Amino acid sequence: MNDAIETIRWREGRVRILDQRRLPGTEAYIDIEDPAGLIRAVKTLAVRGAPALGIAGAYGVALAAAGLSIGDGTKGMTSLRRAALRIRAARPTAVNLHLGVDRAMAAAEDVRDGGTGAWAARVRAVGDRLLAEDLESSRAMARHGAPLVPVGRPVLTHCNTGGLATGGLGTALAVARAAFELGTIPEVLADETRPLLQGGRLTLWELRRWGVPCRVIPDGAAAWAMARLNVGCVLVGADRIARNGDTANKIGTYQLALAARAHGIPLYVVAPETSFDRGCPDGASIDIEERDAAEVTRASGWTPAAGARAFNPAFDVTPASLIAAWISDRGVLSPPFLPL
Amino acid sequence: MNDAIETIRWREGRVRILDQRRLPGTEAYIDIEDPAGLIRAVKTLAVRGAPALGIAGAYGVALAAAGLSIGDGTKGMTSLRRAALRIRAARPTAVNLHLGVDRAMAAAEDVRDGGTGAWAARVRAVGDRLLAEDLESSRAMARHGAPLVPVGRPVLTHCNTGGLATGGLGTALAVARAAFELGTIPEVLADETRPLLQGGRLTLWELRRWGVPCRVIPDGAAAWAMARLNVGCVLVGADRIARNGDTANKIGTYQLALAARAHGIPLYVVAPETSFDRGCPDGASIDIEERDAAEVTRASGWTPAAGARAFNPAFDVTPASLIAAWISDRGVLSPPFLPL
Repeated sequence: MNDAIETIRWREGRVRILDQRRLPGTEAYIDIEDPAGLIRAVKTLAVRGAPALGIAGAYGVALAAAGLSIGDGTKGMTSLRRAALRIRAARPTAVNLHLGVDRAMAAAEDVRDGGTGAWAARVRAVGDRLLAEDLESSRAMARHGAPLVPVGRPVLTHCNTGGLATGGLGTALAVARAAFELGTIPEVLADETRPLLQGGRLTLWELRRWGVPCRVIPDGAAAWAMARLNVGCVLVGADRIARNGDTANKIGTYQLALAARAHGIPLYVVAPETSFDRGCPDGASIDIEERDAAEVTRASGWTPAAGARAFNPAFDVTPASLIAAWISDRGVLSPPFLPL
Repeated sequence: MNDAIETIRWREGRVRILDQRRLPGTEAYIDIEDPAGLIRAVKTLAVRGAPALGIAGAYGVALAAAGLSIGDGTKGMTSLRRAALRIRAARPTAVNLHLGVDRAMAAAEDVRDGGTGAWAARVRAVGDRLLAEDLESSRAMARHGAPLVPVGRPVLTHCNTGGLATGGLGTALAVARAAFELGTIPEVLADETRPLLQGGRLTLWELRRWGVPCRVIPDGAAAWAMARLNVGCVLVGADRIARNGDTANKIGTYQLALAARAHGIPLYVVAPETSFDRGCPDGASIDIEERDAAEVTRASGWTPAAGARAFNPAFDVTPASLIAAWISDRGVLSPPFLPL
């Protein structure tokens, strides 16, 4: 797995991102020259996904540092801190974005007396390291997860957990791809994942780019696909995993888990160590963000009657009892996930 | 329930239909003057739904009869038969359309010697009778079904089973509406029902028109809604019910039935006698139409990568063991559904 998607990369003093707003129709890259451009890309979801946003945060600070005049000293550090705050505010709830910015700022403060030139190099190195760690984490998950995938049967996945959500390889989708490359599975079935259709738009694009046979399915067809297409296992990502194993993930995951259980098919959660919230006791302690009704009432190109209402939770919580195993970069795990 | 939606009606020598292509944005009616106009409306799904198509078939023949010269005799009957064949061919697999046309033609042949004026009146009366029977059937289903709905909890429904699919009142949605009007339920949750979004577009429009509080939900959110919103029962329609109770219905029904079972929530099938196929032994004998991949890959306003594939079955089969009862116009039924 050396052919990662170039979701976000540092290229000759600029940040190059794959513009996800134009996928799957067009594979276009944007070269970003300054923090304002990066903030725009984050706000408009040209770049998205927790690990990718972490890298974006660090590279955003690197762009700010590179824009300072040499030997700018105290004034330069003040300016850098302001840029960091602006980048953080681009997605106020994106924890990884904030962590990326903060790691970058800590590195700059560390070489404070070295002058702005040293800051820029150090900050950029933080972004490079986050990217390298993320790619290695994906390879580890693929290594640990692929042997669990049943032979000769399609796998079913949900939302986008691939290179586009990460530094370039992914979580659950990296496991599916590894299983295909090992000859274990014939194809991947991808839930289209309403309301934002990350499966239909992004997962399908990634799988086809990698030459993995795949079909998109309406979310409502998943149980029927299990019954008719001999699905071997379900592979999903995670937004947050509680200590007891209850797992918050994209809305629809819980329903998939119920259908998988009814068919005797294992559901595996694939997520890096950073998604395990070892301080959170269980699913009941996880707040679920409810999103704008318009994503459901308006997102499909028709004119809704004014004032139509929706139930549009961003996530659901799958109880640990419906999950066969948790595949992380550290191996195949079972709860309780005690503090490390 | 006297305020049926005027899905299709005979109005002063013309057939007036509610143009479903423009819903939910605009409530517009089309006055159709001849069989060609009716065929166009059927082909483009301006009118849809099995009972509505039955009425359309009969009224289409009535338009043809009304267009004949008085006293046209043998030549007129030949012309009428040709029109009947053209109307039947507008939707080659729509059984109800064909039955409506055939019942209308039988009525015309019956008064063959009465001249074309008599034909037109008799044929139109067939359409009127189909419409009246359909409305009465809906009222009967609502009467039988409403007492089964648990008190004080929302109901969940799938696809469009309301007035727009029928002569004006509906099947499962008529039960939900009756339950609301009796004060039994606080609101209806409607699956948006990908890929064609009949729930989000049509069911929501109907419920709001009737003043029933309602929310649309992404199909993937149904199980989470059961867990979080205290859903009392699931009400669905049926395309075809086998003798043992296995029920073919819009894709997604099977998955809902599994989720309902996991939550201890009853799922009721609501369908008129015409949907019971007492000659069909079980679900395994029901062929499932697979529809064009483009409905999934293209229906949401994005540009898919060329050649993207989909699994897009029109229906699924819910085994009888997951269905609490079958509510028909004849009462609350259980299998086996032996020939009457």
